[in-house]
Amino acid sequence: MDRFLKEAYLEAQKGLTEGGLPIGSVVVCDGEILGRGHNRRIQRGSAILHAEMDALENAGRLKADVYKRCTLYTTLSPCVMCSGAILLYKIPRIIIGEHDNFMGEEDLLRSRGVNVEVLNDPDCIAMMKSFIQNNPDLWNEDIGEE
Amino acid sequence: MDRFLKEAYLEAQKGLTEGGLPIGSVVVCDGEILGRGHNRRIQRGSAILHAEMDALENAGRLKADVYKRCTLYTTLSPCVMCSGAILLYKIPRIIIGEHDNFMGEEDLLRSRGVNVEVLNDPDCIAMMKSFIQNNPDLWNEDIGEE
Repeated sequence: MDRFLKEAYLEAQKGLTEGGLPIGSVVVCDGEILGRGHNRRIQRGSAILHAEMDALENAGRLKADVYKRCTLYTTLSPCVMCSGAILLYKIPRIIIGEHDNFMGEEDLLRSRGVNVEVLNDPDCIAMMKSFIQNNPDLWNEDIGEE
Repeated sequence: MDRFLKEAYLEAQKGLTEGGLPIGSVVVCDGEILGRGHNRRIQRGSAILHAEMDALENAGRLKADVYKRCTLYTTLSPCVMCSGAILLYKIPRIIIGEHDNFMGEEDLLRSRGVNVEVLNDPDCIAMMKSFIQNNPDLWNEDIGEE
């Protein structure tokens, strides 16, 4: 597995261990992880701490020129909220573990110039597939579905 | 001023009193405020707590059918991150205090079926204009500009 996707995957597994949704993310700049995070809906009763948001939050307040050198890694294709955060900060490159279990806003990101790469990682696919099968209500809540 | 926009405005003023960016928001469902918030970039060192995100977070975990009955009020036109959160949860109606100081993703919201109303409120315009003039660096950081 890609070195940084592996770190996002470890974050996702940490979330699973905590009883949460197994989605992880890291924000990387100049080869260094600036922020790492995982979905904290259950752990914090949060409506906004998707993995990518948590990683961006944990990276702290950064200047625009730093974001422009970043790559965001995420185990699962980013939803419209997380894609919006990526666009707000003009993060130029996104590496996605998989989009088999959820197709996020990859087209919107690409239409605004973001370089989007999907790795179709079998471990990411299996982890998410299993969680959704066992927790359909939590998963639907997380993506705003009934 | 509209009753609920007034509540968003009071949140913005609270943010200003705390030394933060004066942007406020409330989430309303069936005539009741479920969550209220304001930008907390400075107060919490946050990259994601724009006013709308803070209001959604403070509303807590809600079911999809609740979001679908909500109206989100915000003193300032919502950026792409906050617009993404609105789209994630399929909030059908957004009331915006003003878009003179910042034009958010109103077109994206409308293109996906959200009812967007802009009130051109003079108090919201004056509050934000003054803050931006006095704090251009903070403002640019908040919208991901250099």
